[in-house]
Amino acid sequence: MIIVGELINSTRKKIKEAMQNKDAEYIRDLAIKQDEAGADFIDVNAGAFVTEEMENLEWAINEIQGVTKKPLSIDSPRGEAMAMGLKLHKNGKAMFNSITRESDRWGQLFSLAVETDAIVLGLCIDDNGIPEKADERVRIADRIITELTKAGKNIEDIAIDPLTTPLSVNTTFGLTVIDTIKGVKKNFPEVKLITGLSNISYGLPARKQVNRAFMVSCIVNGLDGALIDPLDPVMMSIIIATEALLNKDPYCGNYLKAYRSGIVVKE
Amino acid sequence: MIIVGELINSTRKKIKEAMQNKDAEYIRDLAIKQDEAGADFIDVNAGAFVTEEMENLEWAINEIQGVTKKPLSIDSPRGEAMAMGLKLHKNGKAMFNSITRESDRWGQLFSLAVETDAIVLGLCIDDNGIPEKADERVRIADRIITELTKAGKNIEDIAIDPLTTPLSVNTTFGLTVIDTIKGVKKNFPEVKLITGLSNISYGLPARKQVNRAFMVSCIVNGLDGALIDPLDPVMMSIIIATEALLNKDPYCGNYLKAYRSGIVVKE
Repeated sequence: MIIVGELINSTRKKIKEAMQNKDAEYIRDLAIKQDEAGADFIDVNAGAFVTEEMENLEWAINEIQGVTKKPLSIDSPRGEAMAMGLKLHKNGKAMFNSITRESDRWGQLFSLAVETDAIVLGLCIDDNGIPEKADERVRIADRIITELTKAGKNIEDIAIDPLTTPLSVNTTFGLTVIDTIKGVKKNFPEVKLITGLSNISYGLPARKQVNRAFMVSCIVNGLDGALIDPLDPVMMSIIIATEALLNKDPYCGNYLKAYRSGIVVKE
Repeated sequence: MIIVGELINSTRKKIKEAMQNKDAEYIRDLAIKQDEAGADFIDVNAGAFVTEEMENLEWAINEIQGVTKKPLSIDSPRGEAMAMGLKLHKNGKAMFNSITRESDRWGQLFSLAVETDAIVLGLCIDDNGIPEKADERVRIADRIITELTKAGKNIEDIAIDPLTTPLSVNTTFGLTVIDTIKGVKKNFPEVKLITGLSNISYGLPARKQVNRAFMVSCIVNGLDGALIDPLDPVMMSIIIATEALLNKDPYCGNYLKAYRSGIVVKE
């Protein structure tokens, strides 16, 4: 599984404050902790700032890259910020988080998405919003993938986010995500499916349990990666266990290594 | 999900001692706790006693039925003990745990399995032992189901245990269980799939995490019930969450009810 550590996001109050106050220690510490907890990418988002996104994103990227060699997930809907983020990026292949098929965002980001060697994450949204039905989400994914590859983007550098909407709103929304994962995988086996899942439990009590169960349900159905809090050790343990259960971890070697390093925990 | 509370089993040291000492309070307390935690059946096993199985089973059944109205899972490989257990059984439809296609056990239990209205749990074992491959397990299940129904057993009163063997022995054994569940369901949609899963994590550290992930993986693939410790609140929470995620819980009503009654927990 591709783990994208989601914590350095300016929509979280403490992160916004840390960016405002240029509290480098706080941001660096979160980067180090997510790295050590097993994140493959460190997400960085300064989108909560209307006029100061560029300045804060630049500052945060530099701070994070000062303490980790993990690649970053540059998280912005704006072409200007994304272009700067990719330019500053130093370590490995970045994640381009994200593009949608909404006309305005597509227009701003399409050329950049094709030109960069970053993994482009495409969200199943178009000008009509997020479709309720899986087959319509798959149709948007098909369009994003087809247009990007036609323009020369390597298909293995495309990821799709099926998008998760709350089960409390509609009890079919878990199956919608699962069916979207299966549908995109069927049409494009080379494309990675990556999503943030925690929205599934919005409005329900004991959200952690729903999130845990949903994570396993999605991995079993083909999910390749997730935006999560890697500092949740039970979630990390369950993800690594699921990969072993699906015979994707020879001799349970990764599971045992993760246990020895404290990433997989007993309780 | 059909939850079979597995705790009153004489292979556990404390239960064996309680049966030996006729410690009614201990057995009753475990029955009440499993009932309150959401068990649909209370398993009762006195098979660790060679010569005193009958006496201890009778005593335990009576004690348990003194404190709970839940049906029991009568757990013995021996015809004599099973016959007595079914005769003593008072509340609802019992579970007949279990029959195999091993010639000796089949001979002892077949007529009883057909005659009783209990749900008969058939294990995928024959005279050659537990097959490594899913298709061979499905073949044994087919044979058990076909022979029982031909003799007049109601197919909806048959359950199959795909049998779980340790992932630490062979990393394909998780998929073997999943493929057996899918194979039996495909051939006989009316038959219930019920299993004890904890054997999957034998020989691995942090067993709880593997068990949790495996439970969800199996439910997503069609598992109908499980023999578990219902006093493990995280496991119970994850099971109930998974059913909601698969759109089997209208308005998340059962999940919300279980949260209010303390069966679904936050952590």
